[in-house]
Amino acid sequence: MKTYLECIPCFLRQALEASRMATHDDGVQAKIIRRVLRETANFSFSLSPPHMGQKIHRIVREETGDPDPYRAEKLRYNMLYAQIYPQAKKMVARSENPRDSALKLAVASNVLDFGPPGFNLGSKIGSILESALSEELAIDDRASFWRTMEKAEEILYLGDNTGEVFFDRLLLEHLPVEKVTFVVRGGPAINDITMGDLDDTGLNGFVSVVDNGSDAPGTILEDCSPEFRQRFEAADLIISKGQGNYETLSGIDKHIFYLLKAKCPVLARDLDVAEGSLVVKEVLPKAV
Amino acid sequence: MKTYLECIPCFLRQALEASRMATHDDGVQAKIIRRVLRETANFSFSLSPPHMGQKIHRIVREETGDPDPYRAEKLRYNMLYAQIYPQAKKMVARSENPRDSALKLAVASNVLDFGPPGFNLGSKIGSILESALSEELAIDDRASFWRTMEKAEEILYLGDNTGEVFFDRLLLEHLPVEKVTFVVRGGPAINDITMGDLDDTGLNGFVSVVDNGSDAPGTILEDCSPEFRQRFEAADLIISKGQGNYETLSGIDKHIFYLLKAKCPVLARDLDVAEGSLVVKEVLPKAV
Repeated sequence: MKTYLECIPCFLRQALEASRMATHDDGVQAKIIRRVLRETANFSFSLSPPHMGQKIHRIVREETGDPDPYRAEKLRYNMLYAQIYPQAKKMVARSENPRDSALKLAVASNVLDFGPPGFNLGSKIGSILESALSEELAIDDRASFWRTMEKAEEILYLGDNTGEVFFDRLLLEHLPVEKVTFVVRGGPAINDITMGDLDDTGLNGFVSVVDNGSDAPGTILEDCSPEFRQRFEAADLIISKGQGNYETLSGIDKHIFYLLKAKCPVLARDLDVAEGSLVVKEVLPKAV
Repeated sequence: MKTYLECIPCFLRQALEASRMATHDDGVQAKIIRRVLRETANFSFSLSPPHMGQKIHRIVREETGDPDPYRAEKLRYNMLYAQIYPQAKKMVARSENPRDSALKLAVASNVLDFGPPGFNLGSKIGSILESALSEELAIDDRASFWRTMEKAEEILYLGDNTGEVFFDRLLLEHLPVEKVTFVVRGGPAINDITMGDLDDTGLNGFVSVVDNGSDAPGTILEDCSPEFRQRFEAADLIISKGQGNYETLSGIDKHIFYLLKAKCPVLARDLDVAEGSLVVKEVLPKAV
């Protein structure tokens, strides 16, 4: 997906958020913003938004010397999701169609906003999960998803955010896990999952995990390691989680299921769904 | 008021909005955005946000050749306010304290959002005005406002937006109008009122009107005409309407009443009020 002009104010908002995550020094924050403004002025809008995201978060890391500004935020989200995972798992097991429920929760896990630090999840989480489970999908290729899963031999599951990885696990429990490789980012990129964020998530050991060799908040194939690109080429099915992966892979000639919540108006328009929609969208490779 | 880092994403949002107001050509829009990014990267953040606003809207006019991109929007708002002015005037007259009600409606008139073109005001307007009248002021220097008004000899009333000018008129009807000069912008600046936008507002002829010689969306004194600066110097009281005038004048050593709604979080923090608050704030000149 190309970068739309509406993405530009958003880039600056992201840069400011990341700067503040990394430093309290106004001067450094201002320096970051000026560099991001210059980079954005010269950015090719035919590239995807995560291309610019990668530049932004590299600048933040360079100027602050903080190798992973979102580290604390990521730990917090992992902890929160760890707390609700057992309850979500029971809910899925008790539901009419457990594998569809697991799929839906994996898609909807982007939705789950736990509020400011100190927010008491305990009393709310039941209804949060219930409402996620009862939400309709705006694009619903679930039937094909399960049919395809049975036939696929090599499946790559491209992860997105820390925290949500617990709900990816919930879905992985219903997939032919021996055929799946879970993919994390090669380096810190916003709150995206990396190897270092997998501790205590139970994913290591449960499914084979690789990193893609890139610090982009998406999957920019030409920026990924040769090993990952080879795997991507060889896989007969890709499960792509989240907006960043969609933005960077849409247009790629491959059999892909996009699982995402359309969290911004630009992406919603690109997919022709309402903002906030849940999506399980299949894209088939061109006939060979 | 200086420019805060939070203002930067907002500059880009404004530039995009203005570009779209002025042209449907994607290429021209992108060119504008790139120029605005470069200007913002080099902008001195010790200047006020309207300094940058002025640059942005000059770029939009230059690149599109449209001398006044907001002209249609301004006409629409004048027309909408023209329709509700008689009802507002009656409401004020019937209220317990008419001049306080007029002052409040002038302050609150920024609040009145009439929705998309075609929105049917008729049925809603009564309750919109009622709720504006019943809102509390977060900073309430009204008592001093009226006391001062009786003593002042030369009053400058700095206008803000088109449309709202009808509610400025509502307030002017309760001021010693022979001592007041109403000030408009010297050239198009967003939806701010200029000489050309006064037709059919009833303001011409009712109060003496001058323009400030500047196309900034605020009052940047050093950018105003010598004639206006002289008047500003000579006036013993300034009534400053709206955010742009506050952002450019706060810090100026003069007796000023700021009438505004704190429409953005940055300004609200600068004034130490909640976002969305209504404000009548007196600032006294340093003792001479």
